[in-house]
Amino acid sequence: MTPPALDELLHSDDTTSIVAWLEETGTLDIADEFTRLDAAEMGVAFRLLPRDRALDVFEALDPHHQQLVLDGLLDDRIRHLLDEMDPDDRVRLLDEMPAKVAKRLIAQLSPDERSLTTVLMGYPEESAGRHMSPEFVSLRASMTAADAMAKIRREGPDAETVYALPVLDDERRLIGVTGLRALVLAAPSTLVGDLMSTDVHMVDTHSDREEAARLVREVGAIALPVVDSEDRLVGVLTVDDAMSILEDEETEDFALQAGHSPLRKPYLAVSAFGLARVRAAWLMILILGAGLTVTVLERFEGTLEQVTALALFVPLLIGTGGNSGAQSATAVIRAMAVGEVRFSDLPRIVWREARVGVMLGTMLGAGMFLPVAFVWDTELATVVSLTLLTICSWATLAGSALPLLAKRVGVDPAVVSAPFITTLVDATGLIIYFLIAQSIMGL
Amino acid sequence: MTPPALDELLHSDDTTSIVAWLEETGTLDIADEFTRLDAAEMGVAFRLLPRDRALDVFEALDPHHQQLVLDGLLDDRIRHLLDEMDPDDRVRLLDEMPAKVAKRLIAQLSPDERSLTTVLMGYPEESAGRHMSPEFVSLRASMTAADAMAKIRREGPDAETVYALPVLDDERRLIGVTGLRALVLAAPSTLVGDLMSTDVHMVDTHSDREEAARLVREVGAIALPVVDSEDRLVGVLTVDDAMSILEDEETEDFALQAGHSPLRKPYLAVSAFGLARVRAAWLMILILGAGLTVTVLERFEGTLEQVTALALFVPLLIGTGGNSGAQSATAVIRAMAVGEVRFSDLPRIVWREARVGVMLGTMLGAGMFLPVAFVWDTELATVVSLTLLTICSWATLAGSALPLLAKRVGVDPAVVSAPFITTLVDATGLIIYFLIAQSIMGL
Repeated sequence: MTPPALDELLHSDDTTSIVAWLEETGTLDIADEFTRLDAAEMGVAFRLLPRDRALDVFEALDPHHQQLVLDGLLDDRIRHLLDEMDPDDRVRLLDEMPAKVAKRLIAQLSPDERSLTTVLMGYPEESAGRHMSPEFVSLRASMTAADAMAKIRREGPDAETVYALPVLDDERRLIGVTGLRALVLAAPSTLVGDLMSTDVHMVDTHSDREEAARLVREVGAIALPVVDSEDRLVGVLTVDDAMSILEDEETEDFALQAGHSPLRKPYLAVSAFGLARVRAAWLMILILGAGLTVTVLERFEGTLEQVTALALFVPLLIGTGGNSGAQSATAVIRAMAVGEVRFSDLPRIVWREARVGVMLGTMLGAGMFLPVAFVWDTELATVVSLTLLTICSWATLAGSALPLLAKRVGVDPAVVSAPFITTLVDATGLIIYFLIAQSIMGL
Repeated sequence: MTPPALDELLHSDDTTSIVAWLEETGTLDIADEFTRLDAAEMGVAFRLLPRDRALDVFEALDPHHQQLVLDGLLDDRIRHLLDEMDPDDRVRLLDEMPAKVAKRLIAQLSPDERSLTTVLMGYPEESAGRHMSPEFVSLRASMTAADAMAKIRREGPDAETVYALPVLDDERRLIGVTGLRALVLAAPSTLVGDLMSTDVHMVDTHSDREEAARLVREVGAIALPVVDSEDRLVGVLTVDDAMSILEDEETEDFALQAGHSPLRKPYLAVSAFGLARVRAAWLMILILGAGLTVTVLERFEGTLEQVTALALFVPLLIGTGGNSGAQSATAVIRAMAVGEVRFSDLPRIVWREARVGVMLGTMLGAGMFLPVAFVWDTELATVVSLTLLTICSWATLAGSALPLLAKRVGVDPAVVSAPFITTLVDATGLIIYFLIAQSIMGL
């Protein structure tokens, strides 16, 4: 049931068919097709949507494409769309815009929405406060379930969620949480204080957004309360926002693992030049690191000239070292990201990984011995096997310890990624190789 | 507010302090501490928990640690715990167990829970059906909001969620969805048919679990209906299960990107030998691939002997090629995973990445020319620069096209990962290097 391509209809300029297509197609599918149009086409299609549908489609787009849509609209239409958005989604969109444009748009919002927006934008980027919804329904412990339901009917239409309900004391401090389900299932006279759970998980406005989002997942909550530095409730972080945050953070980690800065937009929305730019800086740094291998090889050029066969195994040896280092680094980085491993586990992890490295190195070294001995000689085979053992152990050790040490000194462990480990192992691996060769071959 | 370490209390055998610690500590923190205990300690601590707390803690554990807890318990306690679990969580736990043990435990369940469990276990692994909750509340379009609320009060206590409410026709086929929020906010006499949305997103029992979970995220739903092959509703996939699925799948993708099979358990729960095992197979395959580099270098050994300086740049050139190929592969794999890119985008992507490769290659090649010309000579500098240009273009092209082609032939694109691209680029890059050297240096 893939819908016919919207861009073909747009090329044909057949307005009736476009309107019919927009009517038949679901909101998400429309949004998906929009991301494949250029800005002008998107503008035309968007203006053909009925007003309420238009808002749904707009909200289903990512901030980059939202911005492209706005570029093709008149001022009062823009104002209407922005005013109707949820405050946290609006902030995500404004964050993508040049500061001057964002400022102008904020000035045009209705007073209520403007003040909600300015509050959120006051929190640091990547903080939980910036992603929370400031429109929530809160209860008091002294209310009955019936009172609570009445309040929800009153305030619910404006709130982002009514399923997770924080309970506050007189100072607006969080004392418990309950859910709409508990209220609906309880007898109307039950007190909220008797329904609420006091084993409360909350996040701070200044908490890191990724940690906050992971807590939502761990708790399995529809929303978590967000409190300020005086423990007063100021918003809720909903599960759908948590999912978006985790997707962004994971995309970022994948980018870092591959050795480039994260894209700030969807992949297809970035130009070739934009892609080259985010990757170039890292490649430059990595090639400087790789320069060390030239220096090391030059230092051992005499050895190479004596036994040219040594050169044959250089890519295989450092490649295998790099691979085993990358395996170990990625496993540890991921375990840290999902909270399975802490810095205090360092000795335990390094000890385990060191043993893993020795096992892998022994296995690979043993596997290479016979083929190399058969084609060349046992002396070269001994050098290659011993080098594999040493390089694998060293790479696995470095790959596991470096991400934990990075975290310790406040660097994102994902930055100490596969390419860095590989580059490190390349240069040190060559030194190991030639030292072993020299001592065994008596060079 | 990190709680004192539970394992120290357990070593001291001070039961009163342990009980006090368990009382003061939140469910998730207890579960977290449990994962750092050995099986015997976990058994002791678990038996000291009050019965209802015990169930909460048990549900907060991952299947691996749940199994360790069960190992230390008596049969009737095990039966009680399993009977109280949500059916989908129970299936996840049983999936981890040896088939014989699982079968015995299923036989001991109460008849209702047993039949729910067998139904779920009938769906393929990694399918949406296996992760859905078969306990849901469904409505009819002809009900009033008041009827619907009465039904929710009746059936709600057993359902996994009452926030997302599927609406069915007489044949139990899905015709719409609504939410508890809409019911609560509506006038009691409103018809469910007028409240429900008919722009329904649903998943099939046999849908891939990752695609189903991504749809939950895209829709921003609390739960999505799961239907059988005749479009009849059989369950719902809730947002917290979707989050767990995405975390598992992303951990798997990270493992594949680093060139090893995914761990089936939390990192710290896997022994050193277990770690070595999942990594060894891939390293073996990769080292066979790396064997090609030995063959290529041997083929060009004559050239190497004539100009030993060529050997110096081997690690730098193939390392840089590998890095740019990995960047491109990871970007494309991630864009496919989050649904930004489809196979039909292949020509567009390959064209973009080819240009990116030429840009990066030109930049790096130009950057290397002067240093190499200065230390060695312009001829070698020309060879190195041209090789960088060619290798970067080729690696970027291969890195972007291969994941899409893999998906086309039904292979998980994540398998065509950085290590594979690197190995491919290593061997082909060496051929490019020596051919360029031979033609420019006239060897």
